[in-house]
Amino acid sequence: MASILKMENRNPLLKTDRLEMFTDGVFAIAITLLILEVKIPKHADLETTGGLYGYLLYIWPAYLSYFISFIVIGIYWSNIHWLFTFIIKKTNHVFNLLCLLFLMTIAFIPFTTAILGDYILYPEYRSAAVTAYCIGFMLPIPTTLIGALYAFRNHRLVDPALSRAFLNKLILKFVFGMIFLMVAIGLSFSYPWVSLGIVFVNVVLYLIPPDVPVYYSEAALGSDQ
Amino acid sequence: MASILKMENRNPLLKTDRLEMFTDGVFAIAITLLILEVKIPKHADLETTGGLYGYLLYIWPAYLSYFISFIVIGIYWSNIHWLFTFIIKKTNHVFNLLCLLFLMTIAFIPFTTAILGDYILYPEYRSAAVTAYCIGFMLPIPTTLIGALYAFRNHRLVDPALSRAFLNKLILKFVFGMIFLMVAIGLSFSYPWVSLGIVFVNVVLYLIPPDVPVYYSEAALGSDQ
Amino acid sequence: MASILKMENRNPLLKTDRLEMFTDGVFAIAITLLILEVKIPKHADLETTGGLYGYLLYIWPAYLSYFISFIVIGIYWSNIHWLFTFIIKKTNHVFNLLCLLFLMTIAFIPFTTAILGDYILYPEYRSAAVTAYCIGFMLPIPTTLIGALYAFRNHRLVDPALSRAFLNKLILKFVFGMIFLMVAIGLSFSYPWVSLGIVFVNVVLYLIPPDVPVYYSEAALGSDQ
Amino acid sequence: MASILKMENRNPLLKTDRLEMFTDGVFAIAITLLILEVKIPKHADLETTGGLYGYLLYIWPAYLSYFISFIVIGIYWSNIHWLFTFIIKKTNHVFNLLCLLFLMTIAFIPFTTAILGDYILYPEYRSAAVTAYCIGFMLPIPTTLIGALYAFRNHRLVDPALSRAFLNKLILKFVFGMIFLMVAIGLSFSYPWVSLGIVFVNVVLYLIPPDVPVYYSEAALGSDQ
Repeated sequence: MASILKMENRNPLLKTDRLEMFTDGVFAIAITLLILEVKIPKHADLETTGGLYGYLLYIWPAYLSYFISFIVIGIYWSNIHWLFTFIIKKTNHVFNLLCLLFLMTIAFIPFTTAILGDYILYPEYRSAAVTAYCIGFMLPIPTTLIGALYAFRNHRLVDPALSRAFLNKLILKFVFGMIFLMVAIGLSFSYPWVSLGIVFVNVVLYLIPPDVPVYYSEAALGSDQ
Repeated sequence: MASILKMENRNPLLKTDRLEMFTDGVFAIAITLLILEVKIPKHADLETTGGLYGYLLYIWPAYLSYFISFIVIGIYWSNIHWLFTFIIKKTNHVFNLLCLLFLMTIAFIPFTTAILGDYILYPEYRSAAVTAYCIGFMLPIPTTLIGALYAFRNHRLVDPALSRAFLNKLILKFVFGMIFLMVAIGLSFSYPWVSLGIVFVNVVLYLIPPDVPVYYSEAALGSDQ
Repeated sequence: MASILKMENRNPLLKTDRLEMFTDGVFAIAITLLILEVKIPKHADLETTGGLYGYLLYIWPAYLSYFISFIVIGIYWSNIHWLFTFIIKKTNHVFNLLCLLFLMTIAFIPFTTAILGDYILYPEYRSAAVTAYCIGFMLPIPTTLIGALYAFRNHRLVDPALSRAFLNKLILKFVFGMIFLMVAIGLSFSYPWVSLGIVFVNVVLYLIPPDVPVYYSEAALGSDQ
Repeated sequence: MASILKMENRNPLLKTDRLEMFTDGVFAIAITLLILEVKIPKHADLETTGGLYGYLLYIWPAYLSYFISFIVIGIYWSNIHWLFTFIIKKTNHVFNLLCLLFLMTIAFIPFTTAILGDYILYPEYRSAAVTAYCIGFMLPIPTTLIGALYAFRNHRLVDPALSRAFLNKLILKFVFGMIFLMVAIGLSFSYPWVSLGIVFVNVVLYLIPPDVPVYYSEAALGSDQ
């Protein structure tokens, strides 16, 4: 797998194949670990919840938490998949480290989602649970943004045919997404349900397929094959 | 890994390689996490079960649960492997999301199987344990069905040489499989052993190698190599 | 990834790439989960073991258990790697299922090794711990043997240039390995240390690089590149 | 995936693709398991920490521990990635086993980092926590060194165009890194903060992109493409 693309300094350009595999691995593990938060009942649990049928209904927030985490991590995976397919064409040592920072925020999501699932039903803990959840949902955006700013600068790691305006528009979208969720964090201290509404809108927006890349010239499309 | 196949709108066609790798990752993790449910004994456990030999025999339902989960998840893996080899040739943003929905139901299986293993021996919890197990076993079928309906429509993501009749037959099989298991769920409230029998028949049916794909014309076979 | 090699019946021949990736995934997860058995101390633990330094020394059997499991699973991985490189060239539905059976026995090893690490120092539980460990170490051999018998029959899935005598020798080695470890299981009830000695010899034997494949004719070598 | 490069004895040369995938898998799992150490609070925990907001602030050492582990494992991954891209071009049975030894030390890091995060704030346990952490951080270096000595000897597994002087410089760097951290281990018994300072310097040094490979002749560059 000789994947050196260009080597003129201490930070040579590399193919993204191994970085993509590593990223996929972390995503696959983070998303599958979620089921460990849906607890197998102990015999004692069944007495307080009215039998096994009762327990299985009683833990519905755990199912919801599992469902939400899966969607959120899955959406981030799908977006990274899209970025590596259409936008990012090379990597280097610095970008590898920035991707690690991003993966660190992805692997953190199960923690905050579990807290949401466990405490959303308790009025005294609701706002804290929603704050934690909004922070966990927001964190991957600034780390994506830092990586994008680094990769997009002078088309450093991106498809050279992509138009500058398109890349700038992507950056703007990350900035708006981050602001949107920071508003949700701010509101969560007093209006947790409003924050959850913002989160919900965000998830739905993410479900929309991403933008069609715009190239300097349509003839350039596919030139890096 | 430039894997764009066709890009004419917001939902461009992509190669399935990264989706397959992600899917394999989730399956590999889900199947390996099963061993965490076979508990290492604590010293106190050994006193109530007559020593370590006694404990190792006493937890036989945990072994059985491990064995069943492994087979069930393995069979679903084998079938998805088959679908991506013979049927599904492309993916897009929407299909990626539908696959996530499917993986969500796969990663859920260890939970319901652990419940079966822990409670099948207790008459008062047996029917609930079997209901949970049947639901967990059934859930991947509707999510597969949704994905298949989306992918098969107008040969959207499938090998264009596959005959329409063959694709319809596959859809029908998913529908029958789902009905079969919904009957098992319905019966489990009163006749858990009958439901388990239906499940057993299902597992055996799944062990049979899948159908030979049928093409519009045999000459078309291999055209996408 | 069209990986169909030959399709004439319900059990068509497939490339081994995805099976290898799935196998590698299960091995990687099983081997990494081992560290979860080396427990982070709680504050209460430190009082009974004379502080944190004391605790870190006190749990040496957990380190040993981690070390052994890693070597054993790693050796099996290395051997499977060798089998897929030199011997097995194709797969099919049946062989996929047999591989699942094998992976089931691999993912079981952490359980029995943890029991060895936890109970080897207690004379009253030592023989049971060694019995469990020997069974866990032995189980992948019969599952490998079943897979090999299926794959080797009439060179069904193996490199057609491999000599029949070489394949038969491999089968014999699996049989002898299994008998060797069944003797260890039998002795473990009364002579656990002797059984551990047999296990140790086995591990050392496995560290030796595997046999050089023997071909019908040296000219055939590399023909499937 | 016929990946035999040369086969003249019991220890034939192989391509590194599957070894790299296995390595990436272990790294991805080890790094993602870290989040399991950031504990979801139980209701009882919230009473002693002044509610959920209080708990989420109170566990800051767990976040720090998560952050440090992620960076450290990530840096080792990035370095191995670099080694397999520029230096190591082949593998064999012996090198596979040496890589397993290395992976064993990587998968151990979460354990020692969790101990650091849990006990750094307790003066009576601080030096033991730092000792454990320094050992965990150091262990992958000798295992890398052993692998490098084996692979570099007579350019056994490395790019034949690499200059001997460059390889010797790499070995020296590993030796110095190990000595550096052994000093940190020695100091940790009495001066834990000094040891942590050495560790911090090490992490920063590792963030610098690795050396540009030096070849016997620049014309040789890229000859193995």
